[in-house]
Amino acid sequence: MPAGTFDAPSLNAFLALGRPAWDAVARRLERLDPPRLPLAGQRPVLPFTVRDYVDCYSSLAHATTVGRLFRPDAADPLPAAWRHLPIGYHGRAGTVVVSGTDVRRPCGIRAPGDFGPERMLDFELELGVVCGPGNAGPVPVDRARDHLFGVVLVNDWSARELQRFEYQPLGPFLAKSFATSISPWVVPLDRLTLVAGPAQDPPPLPHLAAAEPFAVDAELAVELNGEVVTRTNARELYWSAAQQLAHVTSNGAKIGPGDLIASGTISGFEPGTQGCLLERGRGFLEDGDVVVMRGRSGSTDLGEVRGTVLPARAA
Amino acid sequence: MPAGTFDAPSLNAFLALGRPAWDAVARRLERLDPPRLPLAGQRPVLPFTVRDYVDCYSSLAHATTVGRLFRPDAADPLPAAWRHLPIGYHGRAGTVVVSGTDVRRPCGIRAPGDFGPERMLDFELELGVVCGPGNAGPVPVDRARDHLFGVVLVNDWSARELQRFEYQPLGPFLAKSFATSISPWVVPLDRLTLVAGPAQDPPPLPHLAAAEPFAVDAELAVELNGEVVTRTNARELYWSAAQQLAHVTSNGAKIGPGDLIASGTISGFEPGTQGCLLERGRGFLEDGDVVVMRGRSGSTDLGEVRGTVLPARAA
Repeated sequence: MPAGTFDAPSLNAFLALGRPAWDAVARRLERLDPPRLPLAGQRPVLPFTVRDYVDCYSSLAHATTVGRLFRPDAADPLPAAWRHLPIGYHGRAGTVVVSGTDVRRPCGIRAPGDFGPERMLDFELELGVVCGPGNAGPVPVDRARDHLFGVVLVNDWSARELQRFEYQPLGPFLAKSFATSISPWVVPLDRLTLVAGPAQDPPPLPHLAAAEPFAVDAELAVELNGEVVTRTNARELYWSAAQQLAHVTSNGAKIGPGDLIASGTISGFEPGTQGCLLERGRGFLEDGDVVVMRGRSGSTDLGEVRGTVLPARAA
Repeated sequence: MPAGTFDAPSLNAFLALGRPAWDAVARRLERLDPPRLPLAGQRPVLPFTVRDYVDCYSSLAHATTVGRLFRPDAADPLPAAWRHLPIGYHGRAGTVVVSGTDVRRPCGIRAPGDFGPERMLDFELELGVVCGPGNAGPVPVDRARDHLFGVVLVNDWSARELQRFEYQPLGPFLAKSFATSISPWVVPLDRLTLVAGPAQDPPPLPHLAAAEPFAVDAELAVELNGEVVTRTNARELYWSAAQQLAHVTSNGAKIGPGDLIASGTISGFEPGTQGCLLERGRGFLEDGDVVVMRGRSGSTDLGEVRGTVLPARAA
């Protein structure tokens, strides 16, 4: 193992074992009530080594609102492909950090000739699924449970000035790559309440058409400096993680233990349900701000993902 | 180490040692002439475990020609940010494969309601730099040698139908993620002929303004079924790998041993110098086609990256 390359301890070896082993361990843990380990005073560590990190764009409300902001002249705020496939892109795996890690305000090119600290720093509330065994071909949408172990909360920190200047035509890059925070616990799928998602129009193509419910009924909240500024639910996501996984692998792409697929910002249309500040239209993050995201699915606590904004590095 | 996750043997541990160790080994190897190991009959292996994979867009001719094709209505074929920063995005590290690996034609959504094999399969001729030690902050453009060990040839296979449908607004995803091939040798920087690159207008911002020459004078060729279809030189790339690395880390993003930063397609404006079929406007790859890329910098052979197109998976 290359020195200094991987974090330890790590769930990756367990993730590689797959569903039969995951279920066997879950049966043993059911005998413990509550299934918790004493962790007081322990510093969180990244629970697994992140291999490829994919970030999707699966909330209809988020895509609609952001489309209006970034492309005000477009007739339809949704990109042409949005209702036909779960749009996604690759993020930077090497800068995924665990909850509690401070996040430094990035510098970057905000406009031609203008390099400096990002002034529109934002959070993005997301849910991420953590992959287990690799695939020999496309993963059928109703076999997602064999490849997805569980979920983490994700704060996909975003630099909106950098994003606006850089993102055409190859997508967000430095606007996202400085840090992505995840919660320190991976909550197994079978601890979640899975329900039917929203109706999809047009009906998804056969390889994306799921028979089993896979929307995560999870109440989510964002606290900014101790005040709840967002409450929403992941069940309204238009595309499910099973559909995202089927899409990611539909071209033959390999997945493996430690791959992370995040939902994209989870927002509703109503005030107070937006998963990022951009959609609220009322300011961005200040130095020293503390962002905490929490979640619960049924009786299962999804934990929290926490981060404090540090000032930009001195030039 | 998670079973089945990493290839071995791997250069990553050596990459992590950094420039002093690299130079010490290079001095020892100079006593051997030629510095080669007997490899007849050996099957190539991936020379290092790819951590984050970044793909840039640094050829002026390529960006101009592709801009005209993908955005024919735009006044300027170059994206607004193109001359101000080396545009890039993250690719899929887990599907980087070594030269000689067959590449299956991907399936995907080519248009609304239309899932099937890609009909505009393409190669992309690129040069990739392989990273060594991680950074504690932005890497100054003239300190790139401390963090970049050497180069590989890259074929960034591309599915143009999938790309056209999916790439707005988050960039290429499944159009690229099925496979990226690299040559089996990482050629150290000090074996390359580094020269001054083309003039840049406007002058790059201070953090991208390099004093040391870093353009790679490397003659590159693409053979399609034994016939040379492309000859070009990497020295014409508008943005150098040193500038790409300074850009990638300018927001504080961490790099590490095994990170791969590819140049983007290397093309000229003249017929016969285009690094992909899209720019030639005369057909795409057929099943069974064999693509071989070769390179040479001064007296140093960069080796080859080879791949054969397999038919799409049966539905």
